[in-house]
Amino acid sequence: MRQSTAPHSLRWWFTLLLVLPLLAQAQDPLPSWKDGPSRKAIEDFVAAVTTEGGKDFVPEAERIAVFDNDGTLWSEQPMYFEVLFSLDEVKRLAPQHPEWKEQQPFKAVLEDDQKALSESGMQGLMNIIAATHTGMSTDEFIAQSQRWLAGAVHPRSKKPFTEMVFQPMRELLAFLRVNGFKTYIVSGGEVVFMRAFAEEVYGVPPEQVIGTTFQTEFQDKDGKLSIQRLPKFLHNDDGPGKPVSIDAIIGRRPIFAFGNSDGDLQMLQWTMAGPGKRFAGLVHHTDTTREWAYDRESKVGRLDKALDAAKKANWTVVDMAEEWNRVYPFEQN
Amino acid sequence: MRQSTAPHSLRWWFTLLLVLPLLAQAQDPLPSWKDGPSRKAIEDFVAAVTTEGGKDFVPEAERIAVFDNDGTLWSEQPMYFEVLFSLDEVKRLAPQHPEWKEQQPFKAVLEDDQKALSESGMQGLMNIIAATHTGMSTDEFIAQSQRWLAGAVHPRSKKPFTEMVFQPMRELLAFLRVNGFKTYIVSGGEVVFMRAFAEEVYGVPPEQVIGTTFQTEFQDKDGKLSIQRLPKFLHNDDGPGKPVSIDAIIGRRPIFAFGNSDGDLQMLQWTMAGPGKRFAGLVHHTDTTREWAYDRESKVGRLDKALDAAKKANWTVVDMAEEWNRVYPFEQN
Repeated sequence: MRQSTAPHSLRWWFTLLLVLPLLAQAQDPLPSWKDGPSRKAIEDFVAAVTTEGGKDFVPEAERIAVFDNDGTLWSEQPMYFEVLFSLDEVKRLAPQHPEWKEQQPFKAVLEDDQKALSESGMQGLMNIIAATHTGMSTDEFIAQSQRWLAGAVHPRSKKPFTEMVFQPMRELLAFLRVNGFKTYIVSGGEVVFMRAFAEEVYGVPPEQVIGTTFQTEFQDKDGKLSIQRLPKFLHNDDGPGKPVSIDAIIGRRPIFAFGNSDGDLQMLQWTMAGPGKRFAGLVHHTDTTREWAYDRESKVGRLDKALDAAKKANWTVVDMAEEWNRVYPFEQN
Repeated sequence: MRQSTAPHSLRWWFTLLLVLPLLAQAQDPLPSWKDGPSRKAIEDFVAAVTTEGGKDFVPEAERIAVFDNDGTLWSEQPMYFEVLFSLDEVKRLAPQHPEWKEQQPFKAVLEDDQKALSESGMQGLMNIIAATHTGMSTDEFIAQSQRWLAGAVHPRSKKPFTEMVFQPMRELLAFLRVNGFKTYIVSGGEVVFMRAFAEEVYGVPPEQVIGTTFQTEFQDKDGKLSIQRLPKFLHNDDGPGKPVSIDAIIGRRPIFAFGNSDGDLQMLQWTMAGPGKRFAGLVHHTDTTREWAYDRESKVGRLDKALDAAKKANWTVVDMAEEWNRVYPFEQN
């Protein structure tokens, strides 16, 4: 009996092995994307560059996809989440800095004085970020970022910030990876802060996160080694800084790029200027109900020049309100 | 007949599928490594960290291996190959720089004046490297590096420089990759120069090459986009610069590191200072016949402090003359 059933069970296993990939394909990899122009553009592009023998085929090693983070992979209202982290950190660290009580912009943060804070401008913000992001080791800063992310909640939704991520974009990241793409984050956010959650939340490992950086130094303190973070900005990963960091760190031109603001324009231009088939996409915040609606006049994530460029060049512009079934993972669908 | 043979052929395929990995394992992945302490240390380490359920198991995502380049993956005598490239470039570019005829250190290069060149010291060398590595786009510099590598030959072997690579180290890179490691180059060499050959010669893609960098800028010249290389050093990827760039770009601590000189000491220390099982190796140039023999007194690739540290901490020190069957790929074995 054993001998006669063996080929049978082999055949059964063999059939299963053949059928499993088909089953997987049959499941929609982009369930949060409605049938619409953006979904079609994404699917057509991926089919074109992954079809062996096709005229637009791109070898796997060259399938580099880059994504902005703030406003592209997660929300950025009412303020960049990393700024909210920095303001919380000023309050947490205040006891160690009695001088902040009298020193702007820290005084404004401690007194919740929005007007004074706003008057401190970009330089004030940079000072707050430097004061809260440096003066410790990389390991310590990651740990503190993770502590904050584990406890803080968004002022409107009362959800953890790591749940304020765009479910359709998470599906897109996974869809690209299944199709042999290497997915990168290239963002104005500080690189180590993003690494504190990018792997868990987006499936993007630390070595594929590129961002704004501070200078660091190797420290050997009686044999205890660390990388210390210094209060000096090294690279501003915004606007023209994005193609610069892509060239410096990835060393290849992406074939796929997604952003949402004018700070992403040069990254999209750089991606599209290469030879062969390429994809540029913008998340357009049009959703007053589930997320926010803003573009040309917004202080956070202004989308003006890049929107013009997208329209002129026929890039994909995602109408969030119209094209997404679901914005956040926590929504009931 | 067809029906009765089908299970047979299925069984044959099934057996083949089972046996193939065993056949692959049976083939020696490190044929250029003699049975010796270094080979054993490498094999034991890889077995330990890849054995699921074992106490030293490391998940694939964390299997980061870093390698120095000059003197570790290819030779560096009589001088770093990139310096030889730079000297050739000074001669090639001289017609566009009539002022170099009277200006040191360029005058010394053009007149083959070793004494004056040597007297120009490290600053002179830096000037030569900056003059030959910047002032063009990244794409142009890669193309020029590749032209030089395709035509130039090593002064002693008369072989192309890309054949002056260590066959045992190429096998080691491949062995690690087969075992789920991500292999990185972390080298004092300029990053784009290394990217010009690392993928073809070592199987290391551009995004896994880290090195010394120049500042660059994004240029939009009437719609023609490029990354322009500026004559300003940004990061010196030597000594303490290595853990700094590993932390900045990879964002995780390697578990495996290989170097050959004091410039690799901090990278090895940083690798070994993490928790769990780790590996540090040094290529010791002991081979007067096939390669070169040098260590504590050498101007190029000095190995002194790192050799002491290796002996003290029981790191793996590869005796090239004793432990390698073959040094270069072109050797008859």
